[in-house]
Amino acid sequence: MRLAIDAMGGDNAPNAIVDGVYEAIEAFPDLSVTIVGDEEKLNPLLKGNKDRVAVLHTEEYITSEDQPVKAVRRKKNASMVLAVNEVKEGRADAAISAGNTGALMAAGLLYVGRIKGIDRPGLAPTLPTIDEKGFVLLDVGANMDAKPEHLLQYAHMGSIYAEKVRGVNNPRVGLLNIGTEEGKGNELSKEAYALLQGSGLNFVGNVESRDILGNEADVVVCDGFSGNLVLKTIEGTALTMFKMLKEELTSSLTSKMAAGVLKPKLKNLKSKLDYSEYGGAGLFGLRAPVIKAHGSSNGRAVFSAIKQARMMVTGNVVSAIQTSLKQEGDQ
Amino acid sequence: MRLAIDAMGGDNAPNAIVDGVYEAIEAFPDLSVTIVGDEEKLNPLLKGNKDRVAVLHTEEYITSEDQPVKAVRRKKNASMVLAVNEVKEGRADAAISAGNTGALMAAGLLYVGRIKGIDRPGLAPTLPTIDEKGFVLLDVGANMDAKPEHLLQYAHMGSIYAEKVRGVNNPRVGLLNIGTEEGKGNELSKEAYALLQGSGLNFVGNVESRDILGNEADVVVCDGFSGNLVLKTIEGTALTMFKMLKEELTSSLTSKMAAGVLKPKLKNLKSKLDYSEYGGAGLFGLRAPVIKAHGSSNGRAVFSAIKQARMMVTGNVVSAIQTSLKQEGDQ
Repeated sequence: MRLAIDAMGGDNAPNAIVDGVYEAIEAFPDLSVTIVGDEEKLNPLLKGNKDRVAVLHTEEYITSEDQPVKAVRRKKNASMVLAVNEVKEGRADAAISAGNTGALMAAGLLYVGRIKGIDRPGLAPTLPTIDEKGFVLLDVGANMDAKPEHLLQYAHMGSIYAEKVRGVNNPRVGLLNIGTEEGKGNELSKEAYALLQGSGLNFVGNVESRDILGNEADVVVCDGFSGNLVLKTIEGTALTMFKMLKEELTSSLTSKMAAGVLKPKLKNLKSKLDYSEYGGAGLFGLRAPVIKAHGSSNGRAVFSAIKQARMMVTGNVVSAIQTSLKQEGDQ
Repeated sequence: MRLAIDAMGGDNAPNAIVDGVYEAIEAFPDLSVTIVGDEEKLNPLLKGNKDRVAVLHTEEYITSEDQPVKAVRRKKNASMVLAVNEVKEGRADAAISAGNTGALMAAGLLYVGRIKGIDRPGLAPTLPTIDEKGFVLLDVGANMDAKPEHLLQYAHMGSIYAEKVRGVNNPRVGLLNIGTEEGKGNELSKEAYALLQGSGLNFVGNVESRDILGNEADVVVCDGFSGNLVLKTIEGTALTMFKMLKEELTSSLTSKMAAGVLKPKLKNLKSKLDYSEYGGAGLFGLRAPVIKAHGSSNGRAVFSAIKQARMMVTGNVVSAIQTSLKQEGDQ
């Protein structure tokens, strides 16, 4: 299996990218990786294993400020575009980037294309839960104005992903909503509820955002606007609390000392909430796995994203989605 | 000034309600309160001051499980309905309840009625920020499928509230969105952005949910579905973190001892994030102030809600909203 990875995307590129690649190369003997980026910057970072780690050279790259669609169209030799193109040309089984999310979605749509029967791809990160089992949330921003049938498609894709990649048996699918009872929410959620109930999936009903970190479901579906709001609210609240906690704990000498004792505990807590253990966000609905690693990914997070892409390939997630949609269509 | 308060709503009723009332009576010499509820339960809790604290007796009340609109129509003598009716009949200047939110909205609409020019009332809590200044978020659930012009109306009402009640000069109005740049978001947010830009308000653009606790704006507007999601995500994330923190801190003897030293610090942090200091959620757009206190309100939170209702009355918030809408209409 060969994966293509954009070496120039994300805050810690290219070092974190290369670190993650070598960690993955050691962990998975079946894996080869094409690193796409500026060889002048990459060569000093390489640690051998030339038969399994190739560099595809380009000096062009897409920045986080670039306007996504325009950038993908104009910068045809950008590292991200070339990485996705490796998949299109059949030279790689999946692509990964920690760069501009919108651009990666645009490149995925343009170069890899949609699975037949999927109207809109969904961006699907795995979020932590209090019991550390985690859950898949989609869509978090690929598609702003979703229709009820899009949420049904997300549910099918998320369910297959949870089963094949996360090893969840008969995954519980929930609908993000503002109350647990049927009939709650806006027009979209009411109609999506009815579709999900008749879908044959293991639909467990509405999940309130208050309970979303409590492992109420293995897959939670929503429109991209709502999902993005919730995702960023979790991040923002957690960061704000850590900041306030730090201020409180360093406000006097005694508490500084006590805080010193507790430091490993707090670090523990932080790592429980850390997305980097959960890989990146999958762009579900494309004809091959495309993974968006978090922009602030360190080597560990890049490794997790590679591991995730690899499992999507070995688990045949794309063809399972195609089969599931076909069955749905045949009914 | 006289306020009417539902004594039977909320988890800690009627004790917390009566406690809050007496705290307010002491703090504000101009205040009289009508407590609506079962006098058999209320009389033992009263602490004198009979000229300023009256009981309006009723045995009926609305529960949190009641279907809101149905309950308001059928339980005409429910404590919440009678409290709101005191406003309708001109015997009180404002009403407060910590009970069923949907029912309070229905009672407010039915008995107090909308301000002319407001299509939909908005539910508006004040949330904490890291600098403890707080901001007003609306709508958080009164109106699920909002139109762009509703968000504009929320912005006018929130701005007036922030100025008159929270003492903010020229309040900054932000639009809840998934990115800071203009042109981001769904159809609703794009159209609302254009309206807000031409509104004459101090519009500061989009506010991302990640930054919402960072005092980016004094008023943040959104549709009720999104606002409810964000509000409950903040609550859920904070609660989850406190739970995880507690587990980590009590997992060994040394950390237990250190945690003991830090307890007041953690309590400090909790109170910074505590809504009870910020009063209840105002139901903006009605012809008189109606305040929803948090269901788990203690006496302090009830006091804050009363203080807030009182400032809405003394600040003439309702007539300021009417004037502002008239000017908008005249343009």
